[in-house]
Amino acid sequence: MEPDVLRQVAEELIPFNKFLGLKVVAMDRGKVELEIPWRDELVGDPMKPAVHGGVISMLADTAGGMAIWSALDNPHQRVSTIDLRVDYLRPGQLEALYAEAVIVRVGRTVGVADVRVFHASSREETIATGKGVYAIKTPRVAR
Amino acid sequence: MEPDVLRQVAEELIPFNKFLGLKVVAMDRGKVELEIPWRDELVGDPMKPAVHGGVISMLADTAGGMAIWSALDNPHQRVSTIDLRVDYLRPGQLEALYAEAVIVRVGRTVGVADVRVFHASSREETIATGKGVYAIKTPRVAR
Amino acid sequence: MEPDVLRQVAEELIPFNKFLGLKVVAMDRGKVELEIPWRDELVGDPMKPAVHGGVISMLADTAGGMAIWSALDNPHQRVSTIDLRVDYLRPGQLEALYAEAVIVRVGRTVGVADVRVFHASSREETIATGKGVYAIKTPRVAR
Amino acid sequence: MEPDVLRQVAEELIPFNKFLGLKVVAMDRGKVELEIPWRDELVGDPMKPAVHGGVISMLADTAGGMAIWSALDNPHQRVSTIDLRVDYLRPGQLEALYAEAVIVRVGRTVGVADVRVFHASSREETIATGKGVYAIKTPRVAR
Repeated sequence: MEPDVLRQVAEELIPFNKFLGLKVVAMDRGKVELEIPWRDELVGDPMKPAVHGGVISMLADTAGGMAIWSALDNPHQRVSTIDLRVDYLRPGQLEALYAEAVIVRVGRTVGVADVRVFHASSREETIATGKGVYAIKTPRVAR
Repeated sequence: MEPDVLRQVAEELIPFNKFLGLKVVAMDRGKVELEIPWRDELVGDPMKPAVHGGVISMLADTAGGMAIWSALDNPHQRVSTIDLRVDYLRPGQLEALYAEAVIVRVGRTVGVADVRVFHASSREETIATGKGVYAIKTPRVAR
Repeated sequence: MEPDVLRQVAEELIPFNKFLGLKVVAMDRGKVELEIPWRDELVGDPMKPAVHGGVISMLADTAGGMAIWSALDNPHQRVSTIDLRVDYLRPGQLEALYAEAVIVRVGRTVGVADVRVFHASSREETIATGKGVYAIKTPRVAR
Repeated sequence: MEPDVLRQVAEELIPFNKFLGLKVVAMDRGKVELEIPWRDELVGDPMKPAVHGGVISMLADTAGGMAIWSALDNPHQRVSTIDLRVDYLRPGQLEALYAEAVIVRVGRTVGVADVRVFHASSREETIATGKGVYAIKTPRVAR
């Protein structure tokens, strides 16, 4: 699909993405990098302090789904998450969160994506990894 | 731990929970029910329309962690997610989301919780299931 | 599909099932119970001693797949595992292992099954749980 | 731990490993490569034909656990699987199966490993990926 269309959908037309300020940093066929800018409401552990795990899982889910979506040829196809696994490796700091997602496999009806969540200040230090399996639905109409 | 303390921490002191308006509906030792009240910003698929998967995974993660936390005797112990799996079974409607979490296993250093996400209007229809593994950390201080 | 056909395929025609002596204990549409009889080669931890986790994951995968398969109407459809998660809750004793699997969701192209692994001597004590996502492939039949 | 000791334990002292003929191909601190030699009993889908998913999950579980184990300093520590996720990406051919596992994170009580399963004839083509979370138990030694 057209990168600009995808970007606009992801940033503007999906309310929860917009609510968290999600940005598309980079996009290529089958590969995407997203950002959630920092804001104090994202804290999940005020003692440590650290980012809420729910922000990380939301970002992982969204990035994986967009990686699949970016590789589809038919603009009417839709992507929905079948399952998501997130492994939390280290606490997320009070900074913008980034996720890069790549397609591992994509077929006619199912796609799998790998996601890595990190901060821009230390890109190699993985905060969390995600693995998402996504259903690809092709509407039978569309003429 | 004291239910009232847990409730206050969950609802008031964790910023991302507060941002999403998370409420503790019920709590018992090893069992918890949470709610995220509806608001239009939670939409993830404006075409269907349906709740964003990230809201569901955030709720599952939080509910599982609280179930573990509710069973700890030492108020200085802390719970953090090691990994989370979410299976999305049907689209979430534009209504408040509920999650009930129960402990599957809890040891000295690791706990496992099962979570079920649903709407109050049809409690038996599961929207998503979650399984979370949580680290239990006991600070070596505690005086 | 016909229970007798399924049983024969599962027990006789799948070499690795036969190698481990897998038996179909019960089968219904969308629900199956399997057994792996005990043999000393299944030990994974000779110190404890306990069953090898690989036997448990093999049993969980197979049971989940058969639950999906038992609910298909078209005998030409095939089931293959997309992903499997196993949570190990307590060590498996040196006894026959059982797994019961039920369908959580089944669509045209994807099915999800829940599995519980246990011993017959204490059916309520769960040794492991499994959650499998399976692709359902319908051949574009050549007649 | 001593590589030779680990190798002997893995190949000779764990009955299910020995039953499947598991070999340690290479081992380093926090990294291991294992092999299961081909034999016709490993077939899971005689139509395709392809390796049984249970062989793949067994290999992934074992490789991940050994990667963790190889990094422990105390020879009395024990490793057991908390949970395992396997994503099946392509059918396994009728050839020896290999798995390489690396530690993603290891703490005092929990370790996480990534596993990749492949054939030696096409090492870059991933058949399956695994992610295992393992408990590390330190006996309160009786001396």
